[in-house]
Amino acid sequence: MPAVTFTVLKRDRSTGARLGRLTTPHGTIETPVFMPVGTQATVKTMTPEEVAGLGAEIILANTYHLYLRPGADIIREAGGLHRFMHWERPILTDSGGFQVFSLADLREISDEGVTFRSHLDGSIHFLGPAESMAVQEALGSDIAMAFDECVAYPASPEEVAAGVERTSRWAEACLRAHRREDQAVFGIIQGGTIPELRRRSAREITALDFPGYGIGGLSVGEPKELMYSILEELQGYLPENKPRYLMGVGSPDCLIEGVKRGVDMFDCVLPTRIARNGTVMTTYGKLVVRNAAYARDFRPLDPECDCYTCRNYTRAYIRHLLKAEEILGLRLTTIHNLHFLIKLMQRLRQAIAEGRLEEVAADFYERYNSGKI
Amino acid sequence: MPAVTFTVLKRDRSTGARLGRLTTPHGTIETPVFMPVGTQATVKTMTPEEVAGLGAEIILANTYHLYLRPGADIIREAGGLHRFMHWERPILTDSGGFQVFSLADLREISDEGVTFRSHLDGSIHFLGPAESMAVQEALGSDIAMAFDECVAYPASPEEVAAGVERTSRWAEACLRAHRREDQAVFGIIQGGTIPELRRRSAREITALDFPGYGIGGLSVGEPKELMYSILEELQGYLPENKPRYLMGVGSPDCLIEGVKRGVDMFDCVLPTRIARNGTVMTTYGKLVVRNAAYARDFRPLDPECDCYTCRNYTRAYIRHLLKAEEILGLRLTTIHNLHFLIKLMQRLRQAIAEGRLEEVAADFYERYNSGKI
Repeated sequence: MPAVTFTVLKRDRSTGARLGRLTTPHGTIETPVFMPVGTQATVKTMTPEEVAGLGAEIILANTYHLYLRPGADIIREAGGLHRFMHWERPILTDSGGFQVFSLADLREISDEGVTFRSHLDGSIHFLGPAESMAVQEALGSDIAMAFDECVAYPASPEEVAAGVERTSRWAEACLRAHRREDQAVFGIIQGGTIPELRRRSAREITALDFPGYGIGGLSVGEPKELMYSILEELQGYLPENKPRYLMGVGSPDCLIEGVKRGVDMFDCVLPTRIARNGTVMTTYGKLVVRNAAYARDFRPLDPECDCYTCRNYTRAYIRHLLKAEEILGLRLTTIHNLHFLIKLMQRLRQAIAEGRLEEVAADFYERYNSGKI
Repeated sequence: MPAVTFTVLKRDRSTGARLGRLTTPHGTIETPVFMPVGTQATVKTMTPEEVAGLGAEIILANTYHLYLRPGADIIREAGGLHRFMHWERPILTDSGGFQVFSLADLREISDEGVTFRSHLDGSIHFLGPAESMAVQEALGSDIAMAFDECVAYPASPEEVAAGVERTSRWAEACLRAHRREDQAVFGIIQGGTIPELRRRSAREITALDFPGYGIGGLSVGEPKELMYSILEELQGYLPENKPRYLMGVGSPDCLIEGVKRGVDMFDCVLPTRIARNGTVMTTYGKLVVRNAAYARDFRPLDPECDCYTCRNYTRAYIRHLLKAEEILGLRLTTIHNLHFLIKLMQRLRQAIAEGRLEEVAADFYERYNSGKI
């Protein structure tokens, strides 16, 4: 029996959206799903119980960060990442590839992998498909991602093509290296914003018959419309019966547009990162609660929200906490933002089930863009 | 009916310890009690539900900090400090005096009060007994503290005597200025480490018949034995039927020795502050969980502790969080340390009730000082 199985429960009639169910060794996930990010084996500021309490069914952890600190050995000795961090639901780990290309210095890329300097202490490391698989097996995530090359945006067609070739070779190497039967490996499709290269990458990667597919190399600086058109382009090239994971995407509009274009899984640091900068998402758009305008505003962040933060605290208090650099402020905004996105995904799933996706999406946009904060 | 009432339920036979009950507008407190500190209207890193869940029956908030930020007006408009910070149990506020003398610059002391510069933005402010009472009434704490002068240690007898005189005059001024009937004002006894001046301060302050008495100016750098001897000295000069609050004390040994010398209430930033530096208190002494020695230690912080942290996380994981500067690490060590002190006070209360205080204290010391961490 494969580590994960995916079932499409319903297809939307007027868009590419799908309602699905992904079963993993640590539990079942209703899709489309947003995965909160727990980069360093913790969803920043939150306990696992709080993350689960928001309705999160799966989180993402970062192989690059955990490989460097505390190291894969310690997590293996702890009994794996689930036990180490006290999270019993599914975990997806990325491959480390994206961080090696975006965070580390002194990258030397060869066909075997990448030599890089740690962004923490400057030490030299090597990560390739075999190493990434070994680390992810030590972490014991439910879903591991293949080691890929994410080319920066913009890049020349030659660079993008080279990235596609390397990603395909590394995908095969990952499958050869991978051992754990209680862990699935998803392939990753690259190809930048060049339709022909996207199609080629999709053909080559899906030929390897992974149980799921990541769409990498998007949301890296290109215009949103370009990302949407690539997602449309890809729809015909991805198997209908496998989950599709749009990596690094997490703004409400991109989640909605991704869902409409057949995406089943998303992850992004956006909700937790902007929360720590004092920005929250509300029914009526973004609100920078740090602003002086909210010093005496005794309403909740979002009057239509029923999260712990909005049930118990005012904008004035949260602003005070953020200005005073109190950790509770970061906790409260993080809870609210994650709740906002998880609830949005719940509404999108329900809308697909009821055949009302476009109506629900239009209603969301109308209020979110109204500026009536 | 007075805002607070205090009942001594039992007196220990072999020490000065008392078991008591303090009733306030927001609830009843079993004494001796340790009060967690919520300086800026939040017990650092924690939600009010978490603080209450640890068994805390009262917290302290700082008038100086809240006066400067967000300002008393905002908290008054919010409906008072309880509503502002979503804490429904009792709150004690200090007078701001200690912080004016220890944190602020440019202090000009007159008989009316102190002119000082904010440590936040350099702005000029004036705080005296009337102003302190007005701010504390705006905050709406259950127990307000009289505005006092805490002389630094060491100080000349003349300086200490001047502080005692001023503290007595200001205590009278506080009583004249105070209006709220749902708020008690406790007097504060000064006098440094000079027995004669302590006796004089105790006589003058208790003559004003406050419903409770703070013992200020201790735990400011003097040897512990000197503090203990002052506490012994004071016992005969404090009314038996009023609560006694030793300000700024919170190490386990000082709590135990204070209880033995008749103290009913304590507060201190120690458990929360050392937690954020990666130091925790355990049954077998202090443990610096940041240390490399714990990188692969998969035991809980304290094997005999049943707090949330110790039930669910290992030293290795907490060390990782602290090294990676993850907020969850600060939350977990804070929960543990506050739980440790609150549970210690519960054990001391039970020991007094059972007439076993000295035995329980000796047992605590034997293990805490054993070094068998």
